[in-house]
Amino acid sequence: MARRPASKGADELAFVALGGIGEIGMNLYLYGFGPPQDRRWLMVDLGITFPGVDEPGVDVIMPDTRFIEENRADLVGIVLTHAHEDHFGAVVDLWPRLKAPIFATPFTAALLRAKLEERPGLKLPITEVPLGSRFAAGPFDVELVTVAHSIPEPNALAIRTPLGLVVHTGDWKLDPDPLIGQPTDEARLAALGEEGVDALVCDSTNAMREGISPSEAEVARSLAGIIERAEQRVIVTTFASNVARIRSIAEAARSAGRDIVIAGRALHRVIAVGQETGYLPANLKFHDQDAYGYLDRRHVLAICTGSQGEPRAAMARIAEDSHPSVSVAAGDTVIFSSRTIPGNEKAVGRVQNGLAGLGARVVTDAEGLVHVTGHPRRGELKRIYELTRPRALIPMHGEIRHLEEQGRFARAQGVGHVVAARNGTLVRILPGPAAIVDDVPVGRIHRDGNILIDAEDGPARQRRRLSFAGIVVVSLVVERDGRLAADPEVVTDGLPGVNADGVEIETLILDAVEDAIESIPRARRKDHSVVREAAQRAARSAVNEAWGKKPICKVMVTVV
Amino acid sequence: MARRPASKGADELAFVALGGIGEIGMNLYLYGFGPPQDRRWLMVDLGITFPGVDEPGVDVIMPDTRFIEENRADLVGIVLTHAHEDHFGAVVDLWPRLKAPIFATPFTAALLRAKLEERPGLKLPITEVPLGSRFAAGPFDVELVTVAHSIPEPNALAIRTPLGLVVHTGDWKLDPDPLIGQPTDEARLAALGEEGVDALVCDSTNAMREGISPSEAEVARSLAGIIERAEQRVIVTTFASNVARIRSIAEAARSAGRDIVIAGRALHRVIAVGQETGYLPANLKFHDQDAYGYLDRRHVLAICTGSQGEPRAAMARIAEDSHPSVSVAAGDTVIFSSRTIPGNEKAVGRVQNGLAGLGARVVTDAEGLVHVTGHPRRGELKRIYELTRPRALIPMHGEIRHLEEQGRFARAQGVGHVVAARNGTLVRILPGPAAIVDDVPVGRIHRDGNILIDAEDGPARQRRRLSFAGIVVVSLVVERDGRLAADPEVVTDGLPGVNADGVEIETLILDAVEDAIESIPRARRKDHSVVREAAQRAARSAVNEAWGKKPICKVMVTVV
Repeated sequence: MARRPASKGADELAFVALGGIGEIGMNLYLYGFGPPQDRRWLMVDLGITFPGVDEPGVDVIMPDTRFIEENRADLVGIVLTHAHEDHFGAVVDLWPRLKAPIFATPFTAALLRAKLEERPGLKLPITEVPLGSRFAAGPFDVELVTVAHSIPEPNALAIRTPLGLVVHTGDWKLDPDPLIGQPTDEARLAALGEEGVDALVCDSTNAMREGISPSEAEVARSLAGIIERAEQRVIVTTFASNVARIRSIAEAARSAGRDIVIAGRALHRVIAVGQETGYLPANLKFHDQDAYGYLDRRHVLAICTGSQGEPRAAMARIAEDSHPSVSVAAGDTVIFSSRTIPGNEKAVGRVQNGLAGLGARVVTDAEGLVHVTGHPRRGELKRIYELTRPRALIPMHGEIRHLEEQGRFARAQGVGHVVAARNGTLVRILPGPAAIVDDVPVGRIHRDGNILIDAEDGPARQRRRLSFAGIVVVSLVVERDGRLAADPEVVTDGLPGVNADGVEIETLILDAVEDAIESIPRARRKDHSVVREAAQRAARSAVNEAWGKKPICKVMVTVV
Repeated sequence: MARRPASKGADELAFVALGGIGEIGMNLYLYGFGPPQDRRWLMVDLGITFPGVDEPGVDVIMPDTRFIEENRADLVGIVLTHAHEDHFGAVVDLWPRLKAPIFATPFTAALLRAKLEERPGLKLPITEVPLGSRFAAGPFDVELVTVAHSIPEPNALAIRTPLGLVVHTGDWKLDPDPLIGQPTDEARLAALGEEGVDALVCDSTNAMREGISPSEAEVARSLAGIIERAEQRVIVTTFASNVARIRSIAEAARSAGRDIVIAGRALHRVIAVGQETGYLPANLKFHDQDAYGYLDRRHVLAICTGSQGEPRAAMARIAEDSHPSVSVAAGDTVIFSSRTIPGNEKAVGRVQNGLAGLGARVVTDAEGLVHVTGHPRRGELKRIYELTRPRALIPMHGEIRHLEEQGRFARAQGVGHVVAARNGTLVRILPGPAAIVDDVPVGRIHRDGNILIDAEDGPARQRRRLSFAGIVVVSLVVERDGRLAADPEVVTDGLPGVNADGVEIETLILDAVEDAIESIPRARRKDHSVVREAAQRAARSAVNEAWGKKPICKVMVTVV
């Protein structure tokens, strides 16, 4: 990578992502201002992502904040663009390492405070900033620009420094009728374009998709039609944070003469915050899940958590007919007003099959307009390029293929300069032209049980190995001279009990270990590491012969 | 479930699936003829499926054939409809348990023989039957009806017994121009309809999808256009068994003046069989992968395995730039002429991101018509109902939601009787009306290492548990009276090394175990199981306190 340090002492505007570029989720962007040796930093978002098959047993994954922790004294603030988990989900865990002021709009602040209820003792210095406001954080002059997305109060940021202006889009789309909040403020974006945008740092999620996405209002009409036509019970699952969708569903239920039942903690929390912040009517009437059973089947609609097939959420339990209150039967309609996040396809399929097996008609976004993306398609990207006329584009928020595609598309639309930043690449935006000039340490932190641990050192990798071939542990009790003081013992886990001929594998291991130790000359047995290694080799090769796989093999030697 | 045994001794035609109904893959269908106490059985297909996140370390999954093994003497034959793994992939592993004659058309037989090269000593009694032929297997009169699908020589079966006629569709679609072989034989299906179809057992895969799927010929034209316009190297990955697709790609390469390079063993095998059976021209010229490096970048096209993101296949290695011969660079085009099988989304995404990061333009079926399904959409289902006018429909080949949707759709199309069979439900088709009358044992067999093992008993479940929370093994050496003869030892795997305060977890375990044993009254220590249980409880609770998770905990007690 080219390294072109600026001349010492001159102010620069820098940009680096610690997460969010080259992956979906875990967004964390930093803007730096000052001479390279003495930058002040502004953090934008601090999100999580969820573990995949390579990280079994991990609860959540967060960006490694080592780089900014080392520069904590220069961190002037953390601005949260909106309250999706991939943008603010790591605040509660990582703020104690950063201790910087937090800026958030009222809805985001309210959801953050709601999370704090689970962390007694933790207090966060949250400054509530109004939509459309402008505030200072160290050398940064930050303006919130209203955009549309799939949660209340999403913001783009206009970040001004003495060197120039950067527009950071956050998650956004164009939506003439987002139902909650205002449409994306195109007039403001155009004014910023007039002022001169040195760089546009822009959401890449849907850069492969042509056209313009439907409006939230169209989804509401389509949902209302499906709910109106339903003959028996209706269950709808959606992302809990999508307050506009919840309101649409509630209004459709009311029009169709159906009472609303809520199942799932995350929904209760968001509804409370939605009412507190005025995005849901204070007189919105809903029942707790217990009411489901006694309401007439043509006059009830349940909104449930679990659109991603999460095994402990309401939908999964309904699908296996083990939910304490909510059930489905032939003739009922279940609407997945959501998309399936990549990696969750099998879990979601299992839930949908369970529901179909109970007789429900399952409606997904493949069967009807029951969900819409919150990210810009190509037609929308084209529009933001036209409005802001950026000198440079830095694609963010997406996998590599999305970022690369946005870069290609932007060039074809006449954006003159595209910087292919990655997590950890430090971009000098100004003085321009924007270029990658350095890199900083990045990584992932696992929350695993109650421990935060570097993904590289963490036990998830060991567990992944265990999941392929299991483990063999041998215990040897030896005297000082290396003679066995008792028969070896073995435990195995994750191995078959017997080989293809029906012989116990533990017996084969013990025989092999005893033979191996026997065959060590007396004199060498005094070195217990020789005994240990011989036993380990023997155990591993006995299993490999019996099973064709090589488990983890450990030997304990106790001297008596 | 209603059980309505027929009067003793009267002939019946029965149907049961041991796999394939309620899941994708692992197809195994049985037709039985005779009185209930003395049925002869015909097996249709014997396929595998692939493990998911719940079955870590398992190689392949096969249907549990216990039911038919118990009736092996009455198994008159195994008819293979076509050579996809989910229809014939378990033959090599399970035939030794069944030992019945196998009926297959030449291409399927040739691929089966090619597999046998990896199983020296195994010989299979394969009877090659021509396309469109009719043959007897015990009391069954079996006619092959040509259909279109995504592999050469797919067949539906017309199964006649003295009681009547059943049409088993196998995997099929309508395709006016399948490129290899003939279109689905609609005239023959109509003639069977005239004769009187007592039951149609029909593919449900695409029952949710409206319309009629595009033709293989349309895909060929679209691929040819993309390849013609490519400026640098072209790499195409597809399912190795799709010989028509391989031929289309080869022809497009020739038209574009590109030499063909093949990378991946499965492709070499299919191409050899394709040439042997006449589906690929004997003069098809291709280079081995080593040629890729020296051919001009505008005059080369590589066909590679790995469309599902398989980590050891060619595409995955190309994407991480570790393939010995094939590489990509900026300006190259990589075409995924395939669909992503559910569960593989993350692995495929990883490969596509790797390719994009190397500068390649990645074209998938979301970006162009580069793949088409081999299964019937609703327009095609409608057509087969019209042609065959079945008295009863048994939806097969699909997840529950697909089966249920085909049932609903068929009823709406006027099919008067739908039987919602599941794996293991025994349907009496004739004398009609068709109804579920019994059930038989079903299950799954894992091939795990070199062992075939019942999924319920198998070690995959243990390994799944290990993958969440790891394992702790404690070794205690005690004297007869229960006193510790040495300090306890512990090994852990899949746990963090230290707790949140930096204290070693193994130390915490050992301290807890020693304390627990100390606190057992002398007299009770003589019972070593008391010592063992105390140690186990102490270890588990020490870890839970340190980590918030409960690993597997095992204790070995050696008496000296």
